[in-house]
Amino acid sequence: MFLPRVIHSLKRPACARSFSALAGVDPSKINVTKTTQPRERVAKENLLFGQTFTDHMLTVDWHRDHGWSSPEISPYGPMSMDPAASVFHYALECFEGMKAYKDADDQIRLFRPDCNMERMNNSMERLSLPTFDGDAMTECLKELIRIDKDWIPQGEGYSLYIRPTGISTHPSIGVSTPSSARVFIIMSPVGPYYPEGFNPISLYADTENVRAWPGGMGNKKVGGNYAPTIMPAFEAAKKGYSQILWLYGEDHQVTEVGTMNLFFFWHNEDGERELVTAPLSRGDILPGVTRRCVLELARSWGEFKVTEKNITMAEVTSAVKEGRMIEAFGSGTAAVLSPIKLIAYDGTEYDIPIAAGNSGELCHRMWQTITSIQDGRLEHEWSVLV
Amino acid sequence: MFLPRVIHSLKRPACARSFSALAGVDPSKINVTKTTQPRERVAKENLLFGQTFTDHMLTVDWHRDHGWSSPEISPYGPMSMDPAASVFHYALECFEGMKAYKDADDQIRLFRPDCNMERMNNSMERLSLPTFDGDAMTECLKELIRIDKDWIPQGEGYSLYIRPTGISTHPSIGVSTPSSARVFIIMSPVGPYYPEGFNPISLYADTENVRAWPGGMGNKKVGGNYAPTIMPAFEAAKKGYSQILWLYGEDHQVTEVGTMNLFFFWHNEDGERELVTAPLSRGDILPGVTRRCVLELARSWGEFKVTEKNITMAEVTSAVKEGRMIEAFGSGTAAVLSPIKLIAYDGTEYDIPIAAGNSGELCHRMWQTITSIQDGRLEHEWSVLV
Repeated sequence: MFLPRVIHSLKRPACARSFSALAGVDPSKINVTKTTQPRERVAKENLLFGQTFTDHMLTVDWHRDHGWSSPEISPYGPMSMDPAASVFHYALECFEGMKAYKDADDQIRLFRPDCNMERMNNSMERLSLPTFDGDAMTECLKELIRIDKDWIPQGEGYSLYIRPTGISTHPSIGVSTPSSARVFIIMSPVGPYYPEGFNPISLYADTENVRAWPGGMGNKKVGGNYAPTIMPAFEAAKKGYSQILWLYGEDHQVTEVGTMNLFFFWHNEDGERELVTAPLSRGDILPGVTRRCVLELARSWGEFKVTEKNITMAEVTSAVKEGRMIEAFGSGTAAVLSPIKLIAYDGTEYDIPIAAGNSGELCHRMWQTITSIQDGRLEHEWSVLV
Repeated sequence: MFLPRVIHSLKRPACARSFSALAGVDPSKINVTKTTQPRERVAKENLLFGQTFTDHMLTVDWHRDHGWSSPEISPYGPMSMDPAASVFHYALECFEGMKAYKDADDQIRLFRPDCNMERMNNSMERLSLPTFDGDAMTECLKELIRIDKDWIPQGEGYSLYIRPTGISTHPSIGVSTPSSARVFIIMSPVGPYYPEGFNPISLYADTENVRAWPGGMGNKKVGGNYAPTIMPAFEAAKKGYSQILWLYGEDHQVTEVGTMNLFFFWHNEDGERELVTAPLSRGDILPGVTRRCVLELARSWGEFKVTEKNITMAEVTSAVKEGRMIEAFGSGTAAVLSPIKLIAYDGTEYDIPIAAGNSGELCHRMWQTITSIQDGRLEHEWSVLV
């Protein structure tokens, strides 16, 4: 036998670390190199999501010793990457999804860019990647949009999808905090998600794979949250379902749809009309910008109860079986809102009510309001002129 | 109120998909382009892990329509990557860690390459990336090693660290199965992890962050498992601890160390000598090649009980307090084995016994056996001549 050993208390010196004293992102220092070989245009009716990119991209590099370098706007094209860069090995990468719109007066509009920049900084920080001044980055983005403004398709439902991305360029395969990083922004013209009106989707509630969990990074927009979802989504598609509804815990709590947050509008057990969605408090769902808009608008209307809380699949299926479910929809930047017509769970398909026009009434009204703000038909502080 | 709706049963048509009918990886088709600008050498005493790379790298590209293209051995250098490549956005990436050794007769040896190729294929498959013939890829790797054989440092503890990496090159930002991918292999000469003999490490048992969970991808060697660990590891380092011990569940089950699996050697509650490590069954720890070697060797010796099972921190701290803990060590490709001297948990530091020579007796014997097989001092089927 061995003798018991002395147990020390936890006292260790801390060491300091800061990125802050170095150069910040400076939109006044943008270098612009315009393309001499404009990219091929695609007729707006033929656009496929995320496959066509504009003529230019923005790149801002960062190094631990000197901070952010001058932003570069250059022709869209391949990046030269060291094969040891830790983005390839340890998924040190995060992104945002945003959109720019051309309004009826040919003005260009962004939608709540401050929300995206704040969330991207939260992701960057969690990955030990450098943070930046969100307003400064938005100014750089605006310059990129102005240069490629002819790429913004006009018409209801058309927009320019914007993809800010942060990656580690640190060229060493030790698992360590990155010494160098890059933010780049690419842009892709996109058409309406539902060109012929809403097309309600079906969800497959996955009881096997788990997207995220408390203590993980499910509330950050990092690449590592998406890789695990692709195979299960493909399997669900083979069964005929559009998207996966991710669950958590033994009681199968509803979390999100991976590319969307999820809302139920029901008569709750007290008979009240209630809009419910999963809470941010558990840390396992993405704090969506569209989710936030839906909650803020619904609360401003004050017509029904609006609740962020844990929702189990037992509650969802009871509401359907008892006829209390009014409608359900997903929210996200790509589709804005997606009516849901069916949830497959534990071997059974649950039909969700769909009103006329292939959407519930609340979803339709919310969609009208948000898209009108986005494309400038409705003046609102969320819409920011470029 | 809404009427209850009809519930359908789950019956949908399945559609088929296969990568298999396309061209495989063919080592007979390797194209070699030798460097004209050899890279700078670093004296072997000054090598830092993963920062120096050899003259050449291997690249094998894949496309959904035609399979694997001819393997290319070319000068180590930057890769040209489309900024929309989904490796940057959705962490479609996985890797392996392997080593090559130069033995006393100047022969080059790999260690259980079949295990790494099998695990990499498991990772690729889970990411919807293409799989490959592991033996064919090993043949390509051997050719790369032969070309850069002068880079393998000689001497006890020296080796060539090999990093096979699989990434999606699919140039679209839709979240989808990749249409194109790449496997590349880079190599880095490394010195002994402990140049002056073992240097036992301290672990910080993290009760806040969770590395992986059942239903996730903790048992695959994918980039997304590493990004979340960097900030917590940095915070632990600030408190003076070398690595994080990842826990799972409310009862704080021991999982792994993120870059290593973890073994305890103790007198169990029945008074038996027992080597224990967390099981693979929960799906949240990496099936380490060194872990497998430790288990196989210990079982072949037949001198004590060898068990893969759930271990809680309560069991670990009891064993320490009651003097039943004999020793503990981590296992991984980089350090092979690392003796552990201390675990900080829930505000208390628990000293782990360390025998003479800065290592427990079992760890030292196991390390001697494995490294002797690796560098050819001990003939064994695990060592494969290049």
